[in-house]
Amino acid sequence: MSLSLDTCRSLAHAALATGREKGMKPLGVVIVDARGAVRLTLVEDGNAPLRADIAHGKAFGCVMVGVGGRALERMAKERPHFIGALGGLTKDRLTPVPGGVLIRDAGGAILGAVGISGDTSDNDEVCALAGIAAVGLKADTGA
Amino acid sequence: MSLSLDTCRSLAHAALATGREKGMKPLGVVIVDARGAVRLTLVEDGNAPLRADIAHGKAFGCVMVGVGGRALERMAKERPHFIGALGGLTKDRLTPVPGGVLIRDAGGAILGAVGISGDTSDNDEVCALAGIAAVGLKADTGA
Amino acid sequence: MSLSLDTCRSLAHAALATGREKGMKPLGVVIVDARGAVRLTLVEDGNAPLRADIAHGKAFGCVMVGVGGRALERMAKERPHFIGALGGLTKDRLTPVPGGVLIRDAGGAILGAVGISGDTSDNDEVCALAGIAAVGLKADTGA
Amino acid sequence: MSLSLDTCRSLAHAALATGREKGMKPLGVVIVDARGAVRLTLVEDGNAPLRADIAHGKAFGCVMVGVGGRALERMAKERPHFIGALGGLTKDRLTPVPGGVLIRDAGGAILGAVGISGDTSDNDEVCALAGIAAVGLKADTGA
Repeated sequence: MSLSLDTCRSLAHAALATGREKGMKPLGVVIVDARGAVRLTLVEDGNAPLRADIAHGKAFGCVMVGVGGRALERMAKERPHFIGALGGLTKDRLTPVPGGVLIRDAGGAILGAVGISGDTSDNDEVCALAGIAAVGLKADTGA
Repeated sequence: MSLSLDTCRSLAHAALATGREKGMKPLGVVIVDARGAVRLTLVEDGNAPLRADIAHGKAFGCVMVGVGGRALERMAKERPHFIGALGGLTKDRLTPVPGGVLIRDAGGAILGAVGISGDTSDNDEVCALAGIAAVGLKADTGA
Repeated sequence: MSLSLDTCRSLAHAALATGREKGMKPLGVVIVDARGAVRLTLVEDGNAPLRADIAHGKAFGCVMVGVGGRALERMAKERPHFIGALGGLTKDRLTPVPGGVLIRDAGGAILGAVGISGDTSDNDEVCALAGIAAVGLKADTGA
Repeated sequence: MSLSLDTCRSLAHAALATGREKGMKPLGVVIVDARGAVRLTLVEDGNAPLRADIAHGKAFGCVMVGVGGRALERMAKERPHFIGALGGLTKDRLTPVPGGVLIRDAGGAILGAVGISGDTSDNDEVCALAGIAAVGLKADTGA
């Protein structure tokens, strides 16, 4: 099973709708597939130029290392030299904080990851979880 | 006037619909705004992992240099050392071929650029033009 | 269907055996999967330090762009500025010459690619084809 | 004395067998020779895309600096600015944690290094040691 563009669109739609309902700041959402390839980026109006890159680093980092954003943040705190190395190995395209969430199928296989940035990391993650739930897939935050 | 996410979505929708109507290969579309910041990426199913990056390089290159993709390709042929330098200055994120098209408002101001990749460069550009026309803005291919 | 390590080992074994039977120079073989992730590297004795990187660039380039090495070489000759951009987008990890061969399943889906380097590019490709045939998969040289 | 491909294969076979016997997570193993050139990579099924790069960074870092992974980790903790510089000098291809082990001959000369990644760093190192022991060479973890 792979991640279709239709699924990505539905996931992002639900994630951004959640941010609007809860009155969050403008968000950026990036979805990468199991290859680490970007399938969708949407950045709401009023955002900083780096927004898409931050969101990308969350999603891309999760897929490349195979863990959720909270696990990456734990590594960053416990072994900063290791997460520093992972940053280098990904050509500095890894954002090790919550808001990056692995997308798994019913059997647990990694289909990709969503990265959201714009509000607090915790709120970003809330939107990612809402998006993944909306398409009936399983979320792995790394908590 | 700036490029809203709604406008980006409408532009991309029309661009991808054109590709489907004409039976083109699966496409990737990236829209960056006047700052060079990514606002939208959509990559259709069945694509190579590098597709989003190629499309990004088309759009990003146009905005950063302020010319359309055909002008970048001309530079690449006439002064390869110059386009080589531009590639370095953009950290190798410039794809100097058609399919990258500047988005201008009625007064000629640059609002951003769209980059499309997946079929021939000429066909990619056809879709970019259809997308920009659909939202009532002006296209600048650099021809 | 994905590429197992067992399949990679059998493929590489057959590829290197072909090189030995035909008296070729020492070879390096790299196999990447559909994500562009390295699954196997084997470099025979008596090789230059860059051998694994050259072979990697052949395999990695094929998967990232979704075409065989002969197609990449054609692009390099016909549109050097485009292949130059692809090189930049892959962080200079693309070797656009024969000896990089896509591995497809019976339905045509890309499972990965093998890159071989050490003898002439044509001979490198002969070994790649022998390896892919030995595991019952389909080869796509981009010819 | 140099590291032959046959020796690399035997070393990796024993290392991966140890991981299987002990029920470890799927592993990736990379062996580089005294020049820092990759001679072997094997990545077991079910791994994250970055696995081979992490393992490479362990082996490559050991050979390039001439110390084992535990010594690199000590440097990273005691003098982070120095390991940061080493990371830059190796173009970010250094993973300064256990699981990277120098391979020495009976006289102490460096023949190369093995890097293993996939389980805990301590477990990764156990497999590296088993592999080096299996081919009758001396291991240097940097402890």
